[in-house]
Amino acid sequence: MPFECALPISDYESVTLGHGGGGRLTQDLIAGLLLPALRNPLLEELHDGAILPSNGGGALALTTDSFVVDPLFFPGGDIGSLSVHGTANDLAMCGARPLYLTLSLILEEGFEIKRLVRIVESVRRACQESGLQVLAGDTKVVERGKGDGIFINTSGIGQVHPQADISARRIRPGDKLIVSGTLAEHGIAILSRREGLTFESEIVSDSAALWPLVETALQTVGKGVHALRDATRGGVAAVLNELAASGGCGVRVEEQAVPVREEVKGACEMLGLDPLYVANEGKFLAFVEPGCADQVVQSLRRHPLGAEARIIGEAVEEHKGMVRLSTVLGGSRILDMLSGEQLPRIC
Amino acid sequence: MPFECALPISDYESVTLGHGGGGRLTQDLIAGLLLPALRNPLLEELHDGAILPSNGGGALALTTDSFVVDPLFFPGGDIGSLSVHGTANDLAMCGARPLYLTLSLILEEGFEIKRLVRIVESVRRACQESGLQVLAGDTKVVERGKGDGIFINTSGIGQVHPQADISARRIRPGDKLIVSGTLAEHGIAILSRREGLTFESEIVSDSAALWPLVETALQTVGKGVHALRDATRGGVAAVLNELAASGGCGVRVEEQAVPVREEVKGACEMLGLDPLYVANEGKFLAFVEPGCADQVVQSLRRHPLGAEARIIGEAVEEHKGMVRLSTVLGGSRILDMLSGEQLPRIC
Repeated sequence: MPFECALPISDYESVTLGHGGGGRLTQDLIAGLLLPALRNPLLEELHDGAILPSNGGGALALTTDSFVVDPLFFPGGDIGSLSVHGTANDLAMCGARPLYLTLSLILEEGFEIKRLVRIVESVRRACQESGLQVLAGDTKVVERGKGDGIFINTSGIGQVHPQADISARRIRPGDKLIVSGTLAEHGIAILSRREGLTFESEIVSDSAALWPLVETALQTVGKGVHALRDATRGGVAAVLNELAASGGCGVRVEEQAVPVREEVKGACEMLGLDPLYVANEGKFLAFVEPGCADQVVQSLRRHPLGAEARIIGEAVEEHKGMVRLSTVLGGSRILDMLSGEQLPRIC
Repeated sequence: MPFECALPISDYESVTLGHGGGGRLTQDLIAGLLLPALRNPLLEELHDGAILPSNGGGALALTTDSFVVDPLFFPGGDIGSLSVHGTANDLAMCGARPLYLTLSLILEEGFEIKRLVRIVESVRRACQESGLQVLAGDTKVVERGKGDGIFINTSGIGQVHPQADISARRIRPGDKLIVSGTLAEHGIAILSRREGLTFESEIVSDSAALWPLVETALQTVGKGVHALRDATRGGVAAVLNELAASGGCGVRVEEQAVPVREEVKGACEMLGLDPLYVANEGKFLAFVEPGCADQVVQSLRRHPLGAEARIIGEAVEEHKGMVRLSTVLGGSRILDMLSGEQLPRIC
């Protein structure tokens, strides 16, 4: 092999669900195989999107995401709306206004056309709400039993906001960590639908377009926003571990400050899940300059999607590359990345 | 539904393999569902890629393609190299130099890591050969039995050549139709591997990067090149029918002029396949101004991939939207689009 594959093949000879979970195994796959093979400075940022070298008209951001969520329809959305919001949000996390999408479908023979129409309508509506245009598409069909109804890939292009300078490498000790709202709703909504669980009040996915919130923050404090990441697969814990590693600092989170709705908290307890590890599809984390933090929180709160925004921690000099949780009881524990897969096919 | 779905749902209630075949059923899906739902002027071009409004630094082209080829490894390539060349070629067909790719993997639980490494190495090599950079990626894993080893989506961005003005709408009666080389090799290579057929000499896929050929043609005659399309799924017949429909003219093809290697011709006869309907992955069709045609053929022939380039027909005033084949025996027949799927999962 003309590149150095650093994947510990002896540890696992074949792909496990954990390789898609957003945790340690996914990191192994990226750091041990994909990055060594495809290395370039833009890819090394390991952000969910890449910012293209400016070609004169302002920088563009590029991202891609495949969606394999099961079930296809869930409270608060479906694979169609999720595919639009998910990719648009990856662009927003680059500080870019989402502009264009590509849409590629892998259909399983026998998939009901009625369901396909419903999903395409959902794509259409989500695009319209976000002012996005689909510019190119592709459709493939695989034989019955070789797929699972429908998988969707969307790739997106966005225009980087002139005030944006977003990179994990800009995180500094002292930066405040802001979360844009309550956590774990998407994961619990999917799981409850998948397992046929019902709660007193239905738990609805938070799947939503985040650009309006990000734009507000950028208009308010510009380059005072250092890093942004939506807390999808692997939840807040996975994302903070990635940011701590890329940023070369430690992260401290105040458990008491983390917003989780009562019914979601209850569901997590019942299911034995930690809300910090459960996927969100409409919430982001931001590291911002300490002096800007209150302003950012105020600006987010003016938007319905950011009504519960708050500071939940900070970047610190200590325990570089690691995330520590200061617990309600006054203790402190490491918030590690999960190795495998807590909830497969959550997005 | 807030858009008019024109899909004849009563005709087929669920997805068939033919919906992915590139023929009439694929067209139904696009024209009846996807286009009405996602309509915008750029998408209406129905090209394999879209050209973005210039943002000051020259126009960019955008495209996407998912690859579900079976088998994953075949004479002349594998799903990795195919994913790079396929998307890069869609950009080349917009007259754009391929620059950046995204890479998204959908893996089936249990897929051998060894095979994954081999495929990623093939992606790496193909990117390197074409000067492409992968800027963003994504990996998902689905449970055993819910996928088929690996599916790959690549989306691409290219820089439109300053001399390019490529659109099916520029085809004019009298334009010469050029093919860049011999036909049907990819489809026959896949099929023979899939069915365990052997021929006297192995038939190898023509999967290759087409930009160098396109660049040569553009440098030679610039806007004299009116339309370009690579003859992938559905082969020359499907692509010419699409171009005739978009271009609003008729197309006449001289059967005698169509280049097919002897061993491929033999295999097609044995398998009952018409080479004009078999997929290629390294051949394109061009409509060029009559006065430029010989120059273009000469320039293509200077490149090894274009050594067999030739004029095989022309655009005509008659039978608008239809393709007619002038046969070796002096007759003429309609070269229609297939309804269903001749060779599923060819790319």
